[in-house]
Amino acid sequence: MTKLMPIDLRSDTVTRPDERMTAAMAAAELGDDVLDRDPTMRKLETRIAELLGTEEALWVPSGTMGNLIALSVHLQRGDRFLAPRKAHVLTHELGSAAWLASGMPEPLSWDAGPGRPTPWLIRSEAADTGRYDALRTNLLCLENTHNGAGGTVIPPDEHAQLVAAAKDNGLRVHVDGARIFNAATALGVPPAALTVGADTVQTCLSKGLGAPVGSAVAGSSDFVEQARRMRKMLGGGVRQGGVLAAAGLVALDRTERLRGDHDNAKKLADGLAERGWNITSPQTNIVLASVPDVQHSLEWLRGLGVLAVPMGGRLRFVTHGDVSSADIDEALRRVDQGA
Amino acid sequence: MTKLMPIDLRSDTVTRPDERMTAAMAAAELGDDVLDRDPTMRKLETRIAELLGTEEALWVPSGTMGNLIALSVHLQRGDRFLAPRKAHVLTHELGSAAWLASGMPEPLSWDAGPGRPTPWLIRSEAADTGRYDALRTNLLCLENTHNGAGGTVIPPDEHAQLVAAAKDNGLRVHVDGARIFNAATALGVPPAALTVGADTVQTCLSKGLGAPVGSAVAGSSDFVEQARRMRKMLGGGVRQGGVLAAAGLVALDRTERLRGDHDNAKKLADGLAERGWNITSPQTNIVLASVPDVQHSLEWLRGLGVLAVPMGGRLRFVTHGDVSSADIDEALRRVDQGA
Amino acid sequence: MTKLMPIDLRSDTVTRPDERMTAAMAAAELGDDVLDRDPTMRKLETRIAELLGTEEALWVPSGTMGNLIALSVHLQRGDRFLAPRKAHVLTHELGSAAWLASGMPEPLSWDAGPGRPTPWLIRSEAADTGRYDALRTNLLCLENTHNGAGGTVIPPDEHAQLVAAAKDNGLRVHVDGARIFNAATALGVPPAALTVGADTVQTCLSKGLGAPVGSAVAGSSDFVEQARRMRKMLGGGVRQGGVLAAAGLVALDRTERLRGDHDNAKKLADGLAERGWNITSPQTNIVLASVPDVQHSLEWLRGLGVLAVPMGGRLRFVTHGDVSSADIDEALRRVDQGA
Amino acid sequence: MTKLMPIDLRSDTVTRPDERMTAAMAAAELGDDVLDRDPTMRKLETRIAELLGTEEALWVPSGTMGNLIALSVHLQRGDRFLAPRKAHVLTHELGSAAWLASGMPEPLSWDAGPGRPTPWLIRSEAADTGRYDALRTNLLCLENTHNGAGGTVIPPDEHAQLVAAAKDNGLRVHVDGARIFNAATALGVPPAALTVGADTVQTCLSKGLGAPVGSAVAGSSDFVEQARRMRKMLGGGVRQGGVLAAAGLVALDRTERLRGDHDNAKKLADGLAERGWNITSPQTNIVLASVPDVQHSLEWLRGLGVLAVPMGGRLRFVTHGDVSSADIDEALRRVDQGA
Repeated sequence: MTKLMPIDLRSDTVTRPDERMTAAMAAAELGDDVLDRDPTMRKLETRIAELLGTEEALWVPSGTMGNLIALSVHLQRGDRFLAPRKAHVLTHELGSAAWLASGMPEPLSWDAGPGRPTPWLIRSEAADTGRYDALRTNLLCLENTHNGAGGTVIPPDEHAQLVAAAKDNGLRVHVDGARIFNAATALGVPPAALTVGADTVQTCLSKGLGAPVGSAVAGSSDFVEQARRMRKMLGGGVRQGGVLAAAGLVALDRTERLRGDHDNAKKLADGLAERGWNITSPQTNIVLASVPDVQHSLEWLRGLGVLAVPMGGRLRFVTHGDVSSADIDEALRRVDQGA
Repeated sequence: MTKLMPIDLRSDTVTRPDERMTAAMAAAELGDDVLDRDPTMRKLETRIAELLGTEEALWVPSGTMGNLIALSVHLQRGDRFLAPRKAHVLTHELGSAAWLASGMPEPLSWDAGPGRPTPWLIRSEAADTGRYDALRTNLLCLENTHNGAGGTVIPPDEHAQLVAAAKDNGLRVHVDGARIFNAATALGVPPAALTVGADTVQTCLSKGLGAPVGSAVAGSSDFVEQARRMRKMLGGGVRQGGVLAAAGLVALDRTERLRGDHDNAKKLADGLAERGWNITSPQTNIVLASVPDVQHSLEWLRGLGVLAVPMGGRLRFVTHGDVSSADIDEALRRVDQGA
Repeated sequence: MTKLMPIDLRSDTVTRPDERMTAAMAAAELGDDVLDRDPTMRKLETRIAELLGTEEALWVPSGTMGNLIALSVHLQRGDRFLAPRKAHVLTHELGSAAWLASGMPEPLSWDAGPGRPTPWLIRSEAADTGRYDALRTNLLCLENTHNGAGGTVIPPDEHAQLVAAAKDNGLRVHVDGARIFNAATALGVPPAALTVGADTVQTCLSKGLGAPVGSAVAGSSDFVEQARRMRKMLGGGVRQGGVLAAAGLVALDRTERLRGDHDNAKKLADGLAERGWNITSPQTNIVLASVPDVQHSLEWLRGLGVLAVPMGGRLRFVTHGDVSSADIDEALRRVDQGA
Repeated sequence: MTKLMPIDLRSDTVTRPDERMTAAMAAAELGDDVLDRDPTMRKLETRIAELLGTEEALWVPSGTMGNLIALSVHLQRGDRFLAPRKAHVLTHELGSAAWLASGMPEPLSWDAGPGRPTPWLIRSEAADTGRYDALRTNLLCLENTHNGAGGTVIPPDEHAQLVAAAKDNGLRVHVDGARIFNAATALGVPPAALTVGADTVQTCLSKGLGAPVGSAVAGSSDFVEQARRMRKMLGGGVRQGGVLAAAGLVALDRTERLRGDHDNAKKLADGLAERGWNITSPQTNIVLASVPDVQHSLEWLRGLGVLAVPMGGRLRFVTHGDVSSADIDEALRRVDQGA
């Protein structure tokens, strides 16, 4: 039997840059960003700030660094922050929110649905005793879409209520919007509708948008000034980063293609459900499947040429730009063959 | 109206040393503990190690420092630890478990009762993906009695099952036994029965036991060596600490008096319940009351000369050596007067 | 040969409390300092603030914690601080100024004499590039007396010039005054003359002053509020600390006895110099001797019943309240016998 | 007057990628490096390990992150490390060696020449008291070439003696080789001759070598495994980093061109010296000039179209691939015009 070309549904981070991107990378105007700002990075940062509705934005090498910088600016020793249970900052960033950004996390139950806390819960947790020897709750961290919950979205009105609950209690708000363009596409709103009232936002160019490397963290000019310093401390300051920013600018020109990823996720989910799999209907480009033995299922799928990853006790499939509708058909066909 | 002498039920930390203690403090043999160990501290540490069933123990100025040292020794950056929801290390130590000891906490639901997680939950959370980029779960932190849950106890067999679940998954175990003598008294077992299999234990002399200042952290000789270094780093190394250790030794001679505190807690709880209060039956010396408005109730009680504190959205009353059975009667009488 | 009672010149931390102290400890009015301030600690803190010329002061278990709290309040990530070479915060606090208080240290040469930097050097090092990616120098840490330099003093006018150099460049000033009462005694000035313009000061009750345990950190009310919170985080919050504070108050009543320690140090230094030892004339209660092999000399002295410690490549002898003039004579006699 | 095209001698980081690099970037084979290693990054890492004589190497976004990761792996709380005065890790990395990597630095005097400590000094500083409460010296950090000293080199025999002094005392050795290819070129030896005995090495592709972004940290397989984890924690894990690694591979093919940079630095230094400037003869591509007023001189030069930066109280000029011999002539001509 010949080796099958694997259909890689492990993550939307696996996409490779296309010709338009590599051409843009080769043609990019460059500078030394540490010394006096690279012009293409600057252009990308301006564009992202516009899209997210913030004063400024700052390129960072990864979404993890973007979240880490935001939390480091917001949090002090003795501070507590709220985040939905299984948020990426809690589960997938090696604890840097705690050990480096100094925050004591309080995971919030998903009372409003997968990945979504309620305003009531935020109000209840944010209350402050005022004692000198007590933790001070000062940040709400939202995640839209919520990866661990299966790419679930928080719509604008619900976002506004959560932000209001936080602000009424003096909390700052950070939105981990690694996949905010997926959320915006699914909801049919501009991404800035999902950041209203937030102090800071992080978004990734290297996930569904398909850039090879890069994310951004956005907020007020004052925040970005502090963020730039923190980025240097962490070793995220680069020189001619315009070669990457150029790819990011191309990526931002085609956010509409995320709609296709969502259709493919739906097709995959429906197909698996028809075959008796225990699937929750996907809202964006992530499909979660409950199986009796995650490790066993992953290996069985890999043998069939279908790649997935474990995620909080389930299987996760992610659709992206390098997977076509035909690839989904083929993946389902392979599952049938393996059954 | 004359000002009432308040009945102080805010915490068992408020007890003052009695004559036997002050006499022992004055007579203590002393040395420079940083340079070559204070003999009375050494005696206290030996005694505590015996009581807790560990190789060695180390005096520390507070329970917070004891927990902090243990977690700092156990945890590295990128490590995750499990602790029951509302554990003291999560809620009442200003986040030092996160920012200083480098741990990313995972709060465990109280599936086995107030303050008590299940072995199943530990097994489920401890599973490791083995990936280089994933958090590593390496510590279970138990709290016996669990303060935030109302002084609830974990009995020896349940403790053993929790420890087994942790050990089977390669986790270390720390017992925050700030009130482990209360747990042992309530269960009628020696404290060492509640530390079996634990790597480290913290216990307080200045809570129900009534010493003015001091706690201890205990474990293997190897652990205590590291703990002594960490104590120095944090500024917890003292010189003639024997003056405090002498009081601690007296305190350890009278752990049986905790029984009276528990009886008084029961009497208070029953009395309040009879008066229509929403009370959970106390297991040790802590009584929690659910009230519509905590701040209002605290002030109303203070006006009546009865002092309590807020605890996780409820009122907390704690009985201790400076509160007699007659004081409880008087507290209830005052509540009646105020009604 | 009978075993000699050793003459302990390792440190002034070895002193034991006398009867007046133990009586004060037994009689002290006490409270729960974490909950609502212990009255005797409060009294001690007020007294220390008066002596040091600051708004407020805060009891801490050790000088190390006092320095650590001050530096933690002053410094942020990306900050640099200046301190004389071999300052205690650089060499004897296990690096907590760096890893915990987040400061990048810049050791200053002793251009003005042992333990003493020049104002010129401070001005030169404090200059700021203003770049976002550069360290910001924001603190000068003085040490008076300077332990590692041999208990050397900085007189008031020199102190004022150093502080002016710092303030002109926007630096804060912390005085590690663990032995500031020795400096004040030697100079014949009140201790407050040696803290003029400083933002924070640390002083120890358990060194030459002879209290069993305790130090204090002092500054503005605003600083002390932050310090109290930091003390709790580090585990330095205690309950009935008045038992220790009472001893501290007694210690503060007899600072004039430090004069005797200085006389004894002079006598020891002169005696050793007469015997051909390489000694620098002591300014306070510390005598440093240069010897070819420190470890060998320490052991030889121990065999003779004279205890010292190594300090930066030399032998250090410290006089204190438990060593009399006759003890110095005896120590010299033993040295003669061993020669 | 027409605006002059500036001759940018601020840093060798300002170089832009040439056509061969952009072609390689476009053609690079790519993968998701977080999930399963990008093949071009892997190729680059193998190549660097060979050149530096280590088992493995790891791509990082910046030299700062490379040093930070190495120090974080080597150092624990309570550790002290030795580095030459004005080393990059001490002065230009925002203190992360202290606050993040937990090291207490000890700057070493340049007793063997600019940027170069002596083996004797290392032996003297590395001696350990063995006390539990003392800092433990466990790392020597060398910098070759030493930026702050003016691009000075440590030749192989001197390197070997420094490493021997460290190893004899149980210290690990990290070489900050951001410009190790300059050192190797100047000395006419392979770079691996300058890393013999070192545990870890960092080197930059984006300085003299001319890649747009990227550095590497190298050492044993065991070290690289830990470094990969630490890189992820800091947010330095990227996805299709092969686009950058491809440029790095091109850069490594032309290390011989550094010879031209060194010639240009010599020409600039000689030219300035002829004009009466106070210049130290350059060993590699860095020229330092002592001037009465650094800020004034920088602005005067900028007005003439010659860009430099301040460095430790002097002017720093750096030659690199985007500056030709004719540019140096022109720079000197501009200086003449401005005089």
